[in-house]
Amino acid sequence: MGGRAAYLAVDWGTTNRRAYGVAADGTVVDSLQDDRGVLALGPDDYPAAVADLRQRLGAYEVVASGMIGSSRGWREVPYVTAPATLEHLASASPEVAPGFRIIPGVALTDSKRPDVMRGEEIQVLGAICTGAAPPTALFCQPGTHNKWIATIEGAIATFTTVMTGEIFALLRAHGVLAGMLDTRVADGAAFRRGLRRGIASQNLAATLFEVRAGVLLDRLAPADAAAYASGILIGADVATREDLASRPVHLLGDGPLAILYAVAIAEAGGTPIVVPDGFTTAGIHAIWSHRA
Amino acid sequence: MGGRAAYLAVDWGTTNRRAYGVAADGTVVDSLQDDRGVLALGPDDYPAAVADLRQRLGAYEVVASGMIGSSRGWREVPYVTAPATLEHLASASPEVAPGFRIIPGVALTDSKRPDVMRGEEIQVLGAICTGAAPPTALFCQPGTHNKWIATIEGAIATFTTVMTGEIFALLRAHGVLAGMLDTRVADGAAFRRGLRRGIASQNLAATLFEVRAGVLLDRLAPADAAAYASGILIGADVATREDLASRPVHLLGDGPLAILYAVAIAEAGGTPIVVPDGFTTAGIHAIWSHRA
Repeated sequence: MGGRAAYLAVDWGTTNRRAYGVAADGTVVDSLQDDRGVLALGPDDYPAAVADLRQRLGAYEVVASGMIGSSRGWREVPYVTAPATLEHLASASPEVAPGFRIIPGVALTDSKRPDVMRGEEIQVLGAICTGAAPPTALFCQPGTHNKWIATIEGAIATFTTVMTGEIFALLRAHGVLAGMLDTRVADGAAFRRGLRRGIASQNLAATLFEVRAGVLLDRLAPADAAAYASGILIGADVATREDLASRPVHLLGDGPLAILYAVAIAEAGGTPIVVPDGFTTAGIHAIWSHRA
Repeated sequence: MGGRAAYLAVDWGTTNRRAYGVAADGTVVDSLQDDRGVLALGPDDYPAAVADLRQRLGAYEVVASGMIGSSRGWREVPYVTAPATLEHLASASPEVAPGFRIIPGVALTDSKRPDVMRGEEIQVLGAICTGAAPPTALFCQPGTHNKWIATIEGAIATFTTVMTGEIFALLRAHGVLAGMLDTRVADGAAFRRGLRRGIASQNLAATLFEVRAGVLLDRLAPADAAAYASGILIGADVATREDLASRPVHLLGDGPLAILYAVAIAEAGGTPIVVPDGFTTAGIHAIWSHRA
C-alpha cells in the first residue's frame, strides 16, 4: 500500500482498469492494473470492486474517469457539452457513492455531427495542464476508436471518433478477409504502401477489398496483407484531416499503434509530436485539486 | 424432372446453389435451390453433390458459374482478364469432370487496382445478350459485396467491388454498434437521412460512429439506427461514383437491397434502371450455345 497517497485516481475503462495511489502533490505512489473493466462487471459488482481497490491501494477517496460513468458502467453520469475545461468536468463530477466520484465524458451537441467521449478528455487536459502540450492544439489518440481532438485555450472544443481500429479487428476476426490478416502489423514497406493507397482512396469499403483481390492475383504477399490493410485504414483516417499541414498533431501514447499513426501522419503531410502515456493521473489530479 | 432439358445451368455460389434445367432454346424447364454452396462442401463432396443434382433435375451436361471455380470451390479455374466477353469466358471454361464445365471469373489486372469477380459477370452479360440492358452500360449488383460493373460493347471492361454489405453485417453482429442495428432496414425517413449523411461523408469510419453517438445523445431513435446506418454505408458507396450523372445505372436484382440502392442512386443524382433477377441462365445459355 502506498502510505503517502491522498486519494486514488482510476482510469476505469471498457476492458481494463488502471488505479493509482496519488499523493497530495500529484505524485503517483502506487498503482495496479487488471481486467476488471466495465464489460467484466454488472451494476451490482461495483461496491465489491471498489472495496477490493481500497484493500489493495488504501482506503482513500476515489476519483474515476472512463466508461464507468456510461450506461454500461456503474452509474450513468451525464456528458458535459463541448467546449469543456477541467473546471467544467470537476463541477460536473458527482459523488455516486461515499468517497467515490466519477468524472463525466464530453459530448459534441452543437454541431450537425454528434460525438461522445469518456476518458480521453482527461488524458488530453492532463497533458495540457502539466505543460506537456499547448492549450490550443490538435491531438490524436489512437485506439479501437481513434479520437481526433481539437482544444482551444485548455478546453475540448471539438472532436471526431473514427472506428478505424474496430473495423480492422472485425475484418481480422470475421468475414471474407478473415484468415488473411493474422500476421503482425508493423511499420515497413507493406504498411507504407497501404498508407499511400488509403490516403488516395475515395472509397474505403472498396479499397479494403483490394487486399483480397491483391492476394488472389499474386499482387500482395499473404505475409504483407495485414500490414497493408492496416495501412489502408489508417491512411484513410489521417487523409480526412484537412488541418494536418497547418499545425502539428500531438499524438497521445507511445505504443505500437501510436507509432503507426506517427508514420501515417507524416506520410499525409503532417508533423506528429509524441506525447507519452501517463497524463490521465495529471488530469484527475487537477480535478481532485479543484474539488479538494 | 424436366424432360425437355438439354443441359443444367448452375449458379453455384458461396452459400447457395441454384440449378436450372434448360432446353436447347434457352427456356428454363425445371429448377431447384438449396444451401449446398461452396462453404458447405469440401473438395471431395462435389461428385456426390453433382450426382444429387442430376438425380433431381436429370442426367445432363452441367455448365456452372460462381464460386465453385474459386480456390474454395471444386476446382480453381483461372480468371479471364478484363475486358472479357461471353466468347472469352466460353473458351476458358474447362471441363473439370465428364460433362461438367465451370465458367471462369473475371480479374482486373491491368490497372493499379486489382479486383476480381466470380458469377456476377454471367448475370451482366446475360442481361446484355438478351437485350435487357445495352452492351455499353454501367451496372450495379448489390449484395454482401456490391459490384459496380462498366461494360463496353458487350465486354466487362472494368469493375469495383465494395464491401458495403459485409461491413454492415460485421457491425450488426459484433463490436460497439452490435445491439443497435437489429431492427429491420427499409426505405423511409431514417434511411434517407442516413443516405444524405453518407453521401456527404468524407470519412466512413467516423460517420458510422455517429450512429452510436446519435443514440446516446437522443438525436437518433434506437428504432431508426439500423436504417440510418445502412443509409450511411450505401450513401457513401454510391457517392464515390463520379459517373452517376452522365449515364443511368442498370441495377441488377429486384429484392429489398436493390430497392435501397435504387433510392440511393437517385438521391446521389443518378438514374436507376431496375433489371430483374434471372439473367444468369441467359448468360450460361450463351456460353453453352457457343460451345455446343
